[in-house]
Amino acid sequence: MRLIIIGLGNVGANFVKLLKDRQADLTREHHLDMAVVGVADNGGYAFCDKGLNPETIISVKQKYGTVASYPNYGAPKASITKAIEDVKADIVVDMTPTNIVNGEPGISNIKSALLSGKHVVTTNKGPLALAYKELVNLATEKHLLFKFSGTVGGATPVIDFAQKCLIGNPVTKIEGILNGTTNFILTKMFEERIQMIEALKEAQKLGYAEEDPSYDIDAIDPACKLVILANAILGKKARLQDVEREGITKVTLDDILEASKQGLSVKLICTASNELLQVKPKPIKKDDPLCVDGVLNAVSFYTKLGGTFTLIGRGAGGMEAASSALRDIINIGLTTREGH
Amino acid sequence: MRLIIIGLGNVGANFVKLLKDRQADLTREHHLDMAVVGVADNGGYAFCDKGLNPETIISVKQKYGTVASYPNYGAPKASITKAIEDVKADIVVDMTPTNIVNGEPGISNIKSALLSGKHVVTTNKGPLALAYKELVNLATEKHLLFKFSGTVGGATPVIDFAQKCLIGNPVTKIEGILNGTTNFILTKMFEERIQMIEALKEAQKLGYAEEDPSYDIDAIDPACKLVILANAILGKKARLQDVEREGITKVTLDDILEASKQGLSVKLICTASNELLQVKPKPIKKDDPLCVDGVLNAVSFYTKLGGTFTLIGRGAGGMEAASSALRDIINIGLTTREGH
Repeated sequence: MRLIIIGLGNVGANFVKLLKDRQADLTREHHLDMAVVGVADNGGYAFCDKGLNPETIISVKQKYGTVASYPNYGAPKASITKAIEDVKADIVVDMTPTNIVNGEPGISNIKSALLSGKHVVTTNKGPLALAYKELVNLATEKHLLFKFSGTVGGATPVIDFAQKCLIGNPVTKIEGILNGTTNFILTKMFEERIQMIEALKEAQKLGYAEEDPSYDIDAIDPACKLVILANAILGKKARLQDVEREGITKVTLDDILEASKQGLSVKLICTASNELLQVKPKPIKKDDPLCVDGVLNAVSFYTKLGGTFTLIGRGAGGMEAASSALRDIINIGLTTREGH
Repeated sequence: MRLIIIGLGNVGANFVKLLKDRQADLTREHHLDMAVVGVADNGGYAFCDKGLNPETIISVKQKYGTVASYPNYGAPKASITKAIEDVKADIVVDMTPTNIVNGEPGISNIKSALLSGKHVVTTNKGPLALAYKELVNLATEKHLLFKFSGTVGGATPVIDFAQKCLIGNPVTKIEGILNGTTNFILTKMFEERIQMIEALKEAQKLGYAEEDPSYDIDAIDPACKLVILANAILGKKARLQDVEREGITKVTLDDILEASKQGLSVKLICTASNELLQVKPKPIKKDDPLCVDGVLNAVSFYTKLGGTFTLIGRGAGGMEAASSALRDIINIGLTTREGH
C-alpha cells in the first residue's frame, strides 16, 4: 500500500508515528506492507518512489517546520495537487485542517486523488460537512474507496459500528454527544459550580478547547459530525447549513443545577432522525447510557429490531483520529486484496 | 439461503417470526432469499425441499406443541441428526437451550451440520463454553462459517464490534456486565433497599430470572459468555471450568450501601485479560461507562491504540437473540456470495 499523506499537524504527525510503530505488526497480522511515498504540508512536499522514512519525516518536520526540507526528496513551494495526481500511490490520506467556509484544501485534495484513481482516507470534517454527496458519488463513479472514520468520535469506530455491526437492523434515529470540549465544559460547570466562561478557560488551559472556541461552543464541530453520521448512516443528503444548531453559550449554572435536582444532566445533544437534524443543549436522564461526562463522546443508535445500542469512547485527540485513519487504510487494503 | 432451524423455544419461535416479517426487506436490501427447508423441536421435525411456511410453523407449534404435526411434511420421533445430514441446506441454525453439563444436543447438531457441509449459526452458549476450540477448528477445516453473535449480549453486536470495528487496534482486556438478570437484581437491591432474595423474587415475577435461578445468580451464564468473548476476541483457548467464578448470593444490601457512599456501584463484573478470566461482584465507579443499571448489558474493550470503548445494549430476550442470529445469517449470505 503506497500512501501519500497531506497535512502534518497534530493528526498527521501522529499518523506517521503510528505507521512507524505499527508497520511490523501490520505486515505480520494483515500481510499489508505500507510505504509513505509522498508527504505534504504548508511548506511543500517530499516524494520518493521507494518510500520515505517515517522517522526522517518526523525529524525534518520538527527541525525545519516543513517536509520540503527532506534531504534529496524535498520540493519546496511545489503544487500539492500536482503531486497527488503525478505520484504513483494507492491511497491519499488527507489530514488537512477542517475549513467550514469552503472545505479547502480538503475538497480539492480529495477530488484530485479520486480523479487520478487513488482511494481516499480523510480525517477532515470540512469536505464532508459541505460536499458529502458530491465526493461520495465521485468515489462510487470511479470505483474507489472513500473512508472517513476519523472525522467522528476520534478513535471510537462510530461509523464502522453502524455500517458493519447493524446489518439487517436499520437505524431509525441517532442521538449523540459528539464534542468532547463542550462536554468537558458542561461537566466542569456542574462539578465546580462555575459559569460557562470559567469552565471554558479551564478547557483552554488543558488544551481541550481549540484556538477559536466558537468552533466548539457554538456547536459547529458537532454539527459537522452530525451531518456526516446522518449522511453515512441514515442516507440523508444533508449539509452543514441544514443543521438546526444551538451552542452552549446560553447555558447557565442555574440551568444545570435545576436539571440536576430532577435527576437530569444538561448535555449538548446531536439528533438525526427522519424529522430532525439538530444540535442543542438538552437535559437528559443521568442514568441514560448516553449521559457520559468529561471529554467522552457517546452515540446511541435506535434500531428497528434490537432496541438501542450506545457506543462510548474518547472523542478527540490526534492519536485517536490517526488510529481511525489507520483502521480505514487496513480496511481498504483488505477489501482491495479480496477483489483481486 | 436454505435454512434448517433446530429448537423452537423462545429464541427459535421469535426467529421464525422475524424471518417472516423481514423476508421482503432482506430480498430488497441484500438480495438474499431465505427459505426454511427444515425445522425441528423436541417432538420431531418437518421438512420440505421447497420451503416451509413460517406462519404455519408458528401456528402448528402453538396448536400441537411440535412441528412434527406440520401437515404433509411433519415427521414425529425422527432423528434430528439424520435430518441435519440429509436435508439439502446452506445453514443450520441451532437454537436449542444451553446445557452446560455436556453441551448437548447443541454440540452434536453443530458437528453434524459442519460434517455434512453446512454453515452454522447458533444462539446456544453450551457448545461454545465447553468445546469452542474443537468446533471452531472443525468449521475452519471444512471451510465453513460458524457464527454465534446471539450467544453474548442479546441483540448487541459485541463480538462483531470487536472483530470488525477494532481491526488494527488489538484488544488487551475485556470487562463487562454480561448478565441482565443479576444486574437487575443488584439495581433493585439498591433502589428499593432490599436484600438479594427479595430482589430475586421480583426478577422472577417479571420473567427476568430463568427457571433455575442458579444459572444467573451463581454466574454460570455470564461465565459462559466470558469464555466465548475471551476465545473469540482475545484468542484464548478457555472452557467454562477455567473461569474463576463468584455469583451474587453473598452480596448484601450493606455492601451495596457502603459502596454507594463512596460513589461506587456493586456490579457482577466479567474480566478477561492475559492474566485473568473471572466473574465476580465488584464495586465500580458510578460514572464509569460500564456502570449501567437494570437489565442492560455493557462491555468495555481496552485497546492498544484508542483507549477504551464501551458498548451498551439490552442483553437478553428471545427477539434480541433472534435478531443477532439473523445478522449472522445475512453476513454468511454476503460473505459466501462475495466468494463466488
